[in-house]
Amino acid sequence: MPGRVWTPGAREDDEVVLTGSNLPAVGEYNQTVVLDAIRRHPDGSTRSKLATATGLSSMTVANVCRRLLASGLIEEHGTRVSGPGKPPGILRLNPAGGFSIGVHIDPAVVTYVVVDLAGEVRDHTRSGTPSAQDPASVIDEMGRSINALIETSGVDRSRVLGIGIATPGPVNIADGIVLNPPMLPHWHRVPLRTALSAATGLPVLLEKDVTAAAVAELWYADAADSRDFAFMYYGTGLGTGIAVGGEVVRGVSSNAGDPGHMTVDPNGPECVCGRRGCVGYSTTPRALVERAQREGIVPGAAAGIPEVDAAFTALAALARAGDAAAYAVVADAARQLARAVVVLVNLLDIERVIFGGPFWSRIASIVLDVLPSVVRSDPALVPPHDVRFTESVIPVDVAAVGAATLVFDSTFSPRASTLLISAG
Amino acid sequence: MPGRVWTPGAREDDEVVLTGSNLPAVGEYNQTVVLDAIRRHPDGSTRSKLATATGLSSMTVANVCRRLLASGLIEEHGTRVSGPGKPPGILRLNPAGGFSIGVHIDPAVVTYVVVDLAGEVRDHTRSGTPSAQDPASVIDEMGRSINALIETSGVDRSRVLGIGIATPGPVNIADGIVLNPPMLPHWHRVPLRTALSAATGLPVLLEKDVTAAAVAELWYADAADSRDFAFMYYGTGLGTGIAVGGEVVRGVSSNAGDPGHMTVDPNGPECVCGRRGCVGYSTTPRALVERAQREGIVPGAAAGIPEVDAAFTALAALARAGDAAAYAVVADAARQLARAVVVLVNLLDIERVIFGGPFWSRIASIVLDVLPSVVRSDPALVPPHDVRFTESVIPVDVAAVGAATLVFDSTFSPRASTLLISAG
Repeated sequence: MPGRVWTPGAREDDEVVLTGSNLPAVGEYNQTVVLDAIRRHPDGSTRSKLATATGLSSMTVANVCRRLLASGLIEEHGTRVSGPGKPPGILRLNPAGGFSIGVHIDPAVVTYVVVDLAGEVRDHTRSGTPSAQDPASVIDEMGRSINALIETSGVDRSRVLGIGIATPGPVNIADGIVLNPPMLPHWHRVPLRTALSAATGLPVLLEKDVTAAAVAELWYADAADSRDFAFMYYGTGLGTGIAVGGEVVRGVSSNAGDPGHMTVDPNGPECVCGRRGCVGYSTTPRALVERAQREGIVPGAAAGIPEVDAAFTALAALARAGDAAAYAVVADAARQLARAVVVLVNLLDIERVIFGGPFWSRIASIVLDVLPSVVRSDPALVPPHDVRFTESVIPVDVAAVGAATLVFDSTFSPRASTLLISAG
Repeated sequence: MPGRVWTPGAREDDEVVLTGSNLPAVGEYNQTVVLDAIRRHPDGSTRSKLATATGLSSMTVANVCRRLLASGLIEEHGTRVSGPGKPPGILRLNPAGGFSIGVHIDPAVVTYVVVDLAGEVRDHTRSGTPSAQDPASVIDEMGRSINALIETSGVDRSRVLGIGIATPGPVNIADGIVLNPPMLPHWHRVPLRTALSAATGLPVLLEKDVTAAAVAELWYADAADSRDFAFMYYGTGLGTGIAVGGEVVRGVSSNAGDPGHMTVDPNGPECVCGRRGCVGYSTTPRALVERAQREGIVPGAAAGIPEVDAAFTALAALARAGDAAAYAVVADAARQLARAVVVLVNLLDIERVIFGGPFWSRIASIVLDVLPSVVRSDPALVPPHDVRFTESVIPVDVAAVGAATLVFDSTFSPRASTLLISAG
């Protein structure tokens, strides 16, 4: 079925057909294989190197390259002089060959980014929680923000491939619905994807934020990086994006990635589930702030999202500056996260844990100081290999960039799940 | 790279080349696709139906079928009269076209099975823990058991494709080593796979028992069954075989599937990791027996493996017969398992949980009475869909049958991970 483009997490009856968009359909498998190989060599590659790298015939590579050049997705640059005969052309991605819009809907803020085909963020903007109370106005507001961003960024609108939306779960991917949209507690079962597509004229993909973050990590990773990892997404809540063998684990309803109810501290605060010390509650910025306020480390009492954010910033700054009580609050959270990491590593036999998310950077240095040795020395750790701990390759807005990546990923990535057998 | 056969969990440098075995190499992708389609229609299929089902051209299907018929893997049966013209041939798997040996090394017993291509167990045998203390004698003993089983089962030895070994983890798949072989505590770093292959002249695959069980479940499943599940393997310890999108999750070192250190009972017994109430300790047959003995439900004190086994049988029988105290012991374990199931479902967004393993059947009725409603009513359950609870399709010896399945699976299964691009 060449020409059909796979939508992350979508079911058979829910495929987005990008042929209705501005660029020719590029879902054909060999084309994605070649494009991916070109993308992973930013310094350029030749047709013969591409044939070697992909295992495709010289003829197939030549044909695919001709189509990619015609579509503007790649460019032919200079030549390398390497002896007599016609020098081979150097093929590179054309960064301006395609753009994607990423939107991250967070409880506090909506972030919009424009990303080019080379993965560069061309422009970004933020807006507070939409103030309108009716869905139509909110969608209008988001649509206007997107259109304004495309305008001010100066990118060629005819080359915008689509919009990716990252949101906290649970989501209903099949219907394009955010089940509990954090900015709109009274907004139920609104088909956000369809409505935003209508408002912008662009295809829209929807994904859980932690999954979008993991997709971005795979997309931006070096070829040498492990493709089996857990992405610990530290936001208003804790999520875990999972990659196994280079594929993101989405689960049957695209709601995979909630480690929240792992018990990590039987004496911890009571979770909404009625048990104590669930990692998804006891390590959240709010839980840390509440403890710090009880212990008089930071002033005030936890209230709305902006107050928690500010108090968390103050707590983290004190901890980084060496305040023992503040450090203990963050270090305890790191030890609780370590326990969840051990459970994840044992279950999935991963060898890399990546940290990121909107609240991560403030506590990064302390967690990375405490957690690795706690994990490695835990007698509960089963797999007979080391575990590495890294930070996300995307320092800020990983979910928004990840959301943009979804569009490229669903269009260009030669994954097993995109493979539709056409060879006889 | 047609002709190369993928080994479960193996790395690039560790491929088993079945061309050295008795049958022609059958790793070619289209061939595995056709064979799989034939296998899934035990009543038979026609070439034209196979072309429709696989998306392959009529010509390709005809060519592949000719090769499969010549190799004896399939048979052409009668014909269906469906109008004028030459009636189409009905193609079925030839059950005797290939056989596989499955070996399950358990702390108490080693089980051997011979399975035919249709999945039927042709014969089986058990032996106690090998008594020899040196590796060479143990391998001799296993080799003799396998050769004797092939002999007594009456299957054509020239059609035995290989041997699969299932063992508790951790394993070192790359070197074919069981790291802590349960029957041989003093046996370190013996390359079991190579040695047994030398002793039998057959290719040998090695796999964790829980993974083998999950492979078997996928292999024997109806096409309509969900291919996203957790297999709760209830043996001497608790393991979890994980399937995502029809592929077993093996992890980077093929040691995935250990949920043991999830805390499910903060007041439970102390685990080897130093914490209390790890599900992998508090729900084991031994832990249940120890509690039952403390409470005077069954006599004696937990000792060796045979005593625990017998006491567990007695406890489970009392519980099934309605003894309130015995029932409470098993029901509490069910509630603890339920908590682990909730964590798994939240993390992986699976919709099916399968139970099996050597100790499972004795407590099956009580766990299935208690656990489903506990999971479904847990406020910690996140995904917005139901979860189903089933028993393994293989009632006994699931790990041994699973081990045998590994050989077929690595040879015949058209999975993404076996796909080596050869089409131009």
